[in-house]
Amino acid sequence: MASSLEATTLGDAAFVIRPLPEVVFRAGAIAETPARVRQLDGRRVLVVTDPGVAAAGLSDRLTELINADGLDVSVFDGVEPNPTLANVTSGSEAAGGSDGLVIVALGGGSSMDCAKAIAMDLVNEGPIRGYCIAASLGETGTIDPATAAPQHQPTSAVPLIAIPTTSGTASETNGSGVLTDESENRKIFISNPLVRPAVSLLDAELTLGLPPYPTATCGMDALTHATEAFTSNRVTPYSDAIALQAIRLVGQWLPTAVNDGANLEARAQLLLGSHLAGVAFGIAGLGMCHALGHPLSAVLHQAHGQTLTTMLPHVMGFNMPERTSRYAAVAEALGAADASDDEATNARAAIGAVEAMAERVGIARSISEMGGSSDHLPELVHQAMSDVTMLANPRPASSDDVRALYLAAF
Amino acid sequence: MASSLEATTLGDAAFVIRPLPEVVFRAGAIAETPARVRQLDGRRVLVVTDPGVAAAGLSDRLTELINADGLDVSVFDGVEPNPTLANVTSGSEAAGGSDGLVIVALGGGSSMDCAKAIAMDLVNEGPIRGYCIAASLGETGTIDPATAAPQHQPTSAVPLIAIPTTSGTASETNGSGVLTDESENRKIFISNPLVRPAVSLLDAELTLGLPPYPTATCGMDALTHATEAFTSNRVTPYSDAIALQAIRLVGQWLPTAVNDGANLEARAQLLLGSHLAGVAFGIAGLGMCHALGHPLSAVLHQAHGQTLTTMLPHVMGFNMPERTSRYAAVAEALGAADASDDEATNARAAIGAVEAMAERVGIARSISEMGGSSDHLPELVHQAMSDVTMLANPRPASSDDVRALYLAAF
Repeated sequence: MASSLEATTLGDAAFVIRPLPEVVFRAGAIAETPARVRQLDGRRVLVVTDPGVAAAGLSDRLTELINADGLDVSVFDGVEPNPTLANVTSGSEAAGGSDGLVIVALGGGSSMDCAKAIAMDLVNEGPIRGYCIAASLGETGTIDPATAAPQHQPTSAVPLIAIPTTSGTASETNGSGVLTDESENRKIFISNPLVRPAVSLLDAELTLGLPPYPTATCGMDALTHATEAFTSNRVTPYSDAIALQAIRLVGQWLPTAVNDGANLEARAQLLLGSHLAGVAFGIAGLGMCHALGHPLSAVLHQAHGQTLTTMLPHVMGFNMPERTSRYAAVAEALGAADASDDEATNARAAIGAVEAMAERVGIARSISEMGGSSDHLPELVHQAMSDVTMLANPRPASSDDVRALYLAAF
Repeated sequence: MASSLEATTLGDAAFVIRPLPEVVFRAGAIAETPARVRQLDGRRVLVVTDPGVAAAGLSDRLTELINADGLDVSVFDGVEPNPTLANVTSGSEAAGGSDGLVIVALGGGSSMDCAKAIAMDLVNEGPIRGYCIAASLGETGTIDPATAAPQHQPTSAVPLIAIPTTSGTASETNGSGVLTDESENRKIFISNPLVRPAVSLLDAELTLGLPPYPTATCGMDALTHATEAFTSNRVTPYSDAIALQAIRLVGQWLPTAVNDGANLEARAQLLLGSHLAGVAFGIAGLGMCHALGHPLSAVLHQAHGQTLTTMLPHVMGFNMPERTSRYAAVAEALGAADASDDEATNARAAIGAVEAMAERVGIARSISEMGGSSDHLPELVHQAMSDVTMLANPRPASSDDVRALYLAAF
């Protein structure tokens, strides 16, 4: 950590660190799947994945491994990017009941998030929508806390194993997921330790085939996770150390992973960096870059990491007065700080480093370039203001602030 | 991390990250105990603690909290420093069976380790000794891998809640414990995820009353954990970040906690530092400072942290050729590095900083000062060579090496 970073007081601190899955980090770790299914008392498996992962042959490879071990396996490969409630229902139907079932999520954040919702849907009464968080605004124009919880709490869930094939969402670290309610065209959330994976297999070989664009958007997602966790209003020395390490790993290895996708070393570093970012935001929360990114995904149907990349420099600028010394430490972790410069200069260098990274990995895009117009602004602002990730942002933002940040990104 | 530290390659890395307990960090967190017992389906509680914690009134406070909630509670306060197999048996007898039981460990490493053994002993057949690891040396004079596992594996355990009252052992992070086999006067180990606490309550208020000497020995234990985890032969970028943060927190706050025991801020920082050190060594393992310290505790009946403090500078000197750049990073984390100096100079400064810390907190002692004589040497060397923590040391050591390190510490 930068020596300039002030210490965090702990005498009056209060935080909870939720348990993490058992994590196996090893190229080739996917081969452990059948043994892990049996450890979880599973007799049959539902693989939840998306058409791209299936086309790449990864789900065939997994089902062969599972079949060779004598376990029954079926595959639901209908997960869409920004998965919908309809995806969840289809996946549940494909499971054929929950008896003896273990769900293996194979894919990026969409597959893992959808798998969690299926694991919840299969063993709890009524539509999955009732178990989702869809916050709404109170009279003050900020989130009504009463709406920051789901209507119903699940009582159990099918056991899960997560096998990420991208390095970005870190959905393998937690019991949270983002879904799209297609009837309202907005993002909604699930969050419950019951759907935290029991085991996560981090197998960098599975990420070798990811094309440059999703590699870049996922990597920038991880960088945003770490940056927001390191600058939220819930920071701890625990998450700080992990978040800064994630920033270092992603900053150092993302360009190589994008430009030389077959480089296992870069892929492995990026996979661990993404995972660490998830561990960090699991403790410290996220911030308004996620709140501003989610509506862009929902309304403009853009990749999550793309929307974050577009908004991150603007959000960092907005939060700068509250987090100057921490952004200076981000710059240092990205190799963009100069010891001879003052803290404010180095903090601004962090914004420049994030913009330069977006350019370097080829995904620097404005909202206009993503198809947005001023007609979308009211809906974007409304959705952003009611996004629960707004709650951990270090500087409170009004709807005017949010509108200004979107306008700056056009 | 020091910019001088070489990166760790990950393409061919393989490591497992075991789950951690749910952790609540908050002054006053002890008040959550009854609710946590009920979460674990407990109807009655056995508090496992030591006479010092009981005399300080902490176990009375805990039992009042539990009684006020309507749960049955009994107390076993007979845990000795370096707890024995007889302590485990007495604790199991005090439990009155395992039905509806949750064990709450309240104390330092001795109480937590003993509580884990009781949790294992209560629901598994035969003497607890059969579930302990007591490695022995093979023909080559190093540990016979076949003896690095217990004779029997436990099949279940009573659920545990850990409430540390010292900042050092980090036993609240894992399912491991160190016991003393009094018949052989040697240290033996338990290690199983079944006895990992389900919940750990980190309540710095409970550590306010710890006298200077145990505050110092426990703090140096934490510093040793972090230093060994950061320089073992199983290092990862994950544990590195956490270990360095632990070194920073302990290095910065231990002197204040020793000299001003009522300082809640120092106590909270130290409690988190100790916990982080445990998280780090849970991933990366320890090293031969622990292997050399355990026999000194067993043979000379010294506090664990005291024996580590005595041996750590010598072990760092021995490992120096393998870990120069990492020790330079340790020096930086301790504020003892000079940017204008070369890496080797800074690495040696880490040893100086550890020695200076031991002086500053008043526990710099030689083996002679702990009552050791040359008569003890053969037994010390034999026990150290058969200690499983030797396995993660970055530089292999012969019995001659170990003897030389002990002699240097006389």
